[in-house]
Amino acid sequence: MTEANPAEIHPTAVVHPGTILGAGVRVLEHAVVGKQPSLGARSTAKREPLPPTTIGDGTVVSTGAVVFAGSAIGASCIVGDQSCIRERVTLADDCVVGRGSLIENDTSVGAGTRIQAGAYVTAYSTLEEDVFIAPCVVTTNDNYMGRTEKRKALMRGPTIRRGARVGGGAILCPGIEVGEEAFVGAGAVVTKDVPARKVVVGSPARVIRDVHADELRENGG
Amino acid sequence: MTEANPAEIHPTAVVHPGTILGAGVRVLEHAVVGKQPSLGARSTAKREPLPPTTIGDGTVVSTGAVVFAGSAIGASCIVGDQSCIRERVTLADDCVVGRGSLIENDTSVGAGTRIQAGAYVTAYSTLEEDVFIAPCVVTTNDNYMGRTEKRKALMRGPTIRRGARVGGGAILCPGIEVGEEAFVGAGAVVTKDVPARKVVVGSPARVIRDVHADELRENGG
Amino acid sequence: MTEANPAEIHPTAVVHPGTILGAGVRVLEHAVVGKQPSLGARSTAKREPLPPTTIGDGTVVSTGAVVFAGSAIGASCIVGDQSCIRERVTLADDCVVGRGSLIENDTSVGAGTRIQAGAYVTAYSTLEEDVFIAPCVVTTNDNYMGRTEKRKALMRGPTIRRGARVGGGAILCPGIEVGEEAFVGAGAVVTKDVPARKVVVGSPARVIRDVHADELRENGG
Repeated sequence: MTEANPAEIHPTAVVHPGTILGAGVRVLEHAVVGKQPSLGARSTAKREPLPPTTIGDGTVVSTGAVVFAGSAIGASCIVGDQSCIRERVTLADDCVVGRGSLIENDTSVGAGTRIQAGAYVTAYSTLEEDVFIAPCVVTTNDNYMGRTEKRKALMRGPTIRRGARVGGGAILCPGIEVGEEAFVGAGAVVTKDVPARKVVVGSPARVIRDVHADELRENGG
Repeated sequence: MTEANPAEIHPTAVVHPGTILGAGVRVLEHAVVGKQPSLGARSTAKREPLPPTTIGDGTVVSTGAVVFAGSAIGASCIVGDQSCIRERVTLADDCVVGRGSLIENDTSVGAGTRIQAGAYVTAYSTLEEDVFIAPCVVTTNDNYMGRTEKRKALMRGPTIRRGARVGGGAILCPGIEVGEEAFVGAGAVVTKDVPARKVVVGSPARVIRDVHADELRENGG
Repeated sequence: MTEANPAEIHPTAVVHPGTILGAGVRVLEHAVVGKQPSLGARSTAKREPLPPTTIGDGTVVSTGAVVFAGSAIGASCIVGDQSCIRERVTLADDCVVGRGSLIENDTSVGAGTRIQAGAYVTAYSTLEEDVFIAPCVVTTNDNYMGRTEKRKALMRGPTIRRGARVGGGAILCPGIEVGEEAFVGAGAVVTKDVPARKVVVGSPARVIRDVHADELRENGG
């Protein structure tokens, strides 16, 4: 944080001690940055002490957003109004986390990925570069929903490959891989992996065609 | 705003300069009114300067809600707890925006329309009078999900006609028209227009019957 | 609240007068506890004055959460970040209300029940003990969606029996009963009651098998 371009913290925001804010970072009204988690007795999240949050140059943490300790947000990101980013999340540069979305713990998000409003990205997810997550997408990571000991070893969030797009309100079952440049239609319930460059729709989701060539990133889509 | 019935602003709320509050308006704890947008580098939203927010007589902006500049909220509305109304939204009188809901930019909502909790109303939507949007409804406006230049001309939110009802968790694909007094069942995935006074259910949604006469507004329903 | 272990209220939180906080309760940044409702003109919620909120020993009301007057939260609960609990809700001990979830009015939640992030629990719901509600579950209570007078007598939220699990993004139609230890798959649209110890999936949801014995609570699952 240079003297020439300091971070700008609204007086109603709370930035916990130790937080590292890059040049030109803005933290808006009622946002909270650097919060330590309060875990429930049965939570499976790790309990070691967390390092401070780091926020890259030019990133905006918007009104009412909450960013936990132990997470690293890149440069030129927008952490949307009323959104939440949990602990041990890595967000690369130029990402958008839409209004009200939640990125759960231990998740990695690649550069240029846009997560629209109201999306739920579960713990232990991997989103590569240039992914598009439409509004209100739901992801899951636990086929056992809190039962059995073995589930703790089997919990797996989705892996969403470079350039893939997931449509509004779509639901991904635990451990799903969505292939590079694949397209999941709005409202699809995805119960098995989605091949690269294919379009799937429906409940359960089925392949209906290839992604049109003019929509591929390699073609400037 | 008369002297006799001034607006009541909680000390923890933030009302940006220029905001016009009607008589008896209440702005509750931690609400933010008149916020200017922080757009991402690739956002398609317009960038001209925005006029102040106006809030009509007797409207309540509830706890933690965020209302952007450039929007006009009518009289006797409830902007629910933790909800968000973006820029260039017009809300007529007697509307309810449920807790946690988001009304995206450039959307118009008719008088008496009730948007229940957790709903997502996408940008460039039209909701006419007396519409009922059940909890957690998802709407969409972009079949291309952020790809191609042509999509910018093709983005279209839903048009939801007078008196229509959309059920809990239903998903509307881009540009859908829901006809007057039509009824979309809970969990439906709507991929084509819904005729007036028809009931649709399922994924993809299909017409199953007429709306019962005693539920029509013209019959006092 | 003993002198030895007083409640801890963040200076940015708002705790309304009369609220009863147990020993060791923590109320985090920007949370609001004990709020009176602001009802819309056509809301069907009751209008009598509400008694103060009570919060049991050791419970955490997290960042940005809102808890209404007239509700009683048990001991050792977590009321998640940005969540909301409406009036006349009873939450027993050891419950979790996930980040961003909403528990509507006149709902009862049994001990040990875990409601994950982004879930919507409608008014007049009953959740028994040890229920698991996955992220972004949607429940409903009104087949008439705001029309006709008769609906007021017919509004019924779900009844979710002891040990049942409801998967991510599943939608329950009004008045559904989910039986003891039953399992609703992610993305299911549940249109009729779910028998005890059965697994249902799909839209509309259908029984596909029994719950595996090692996942039943009586077997230590």
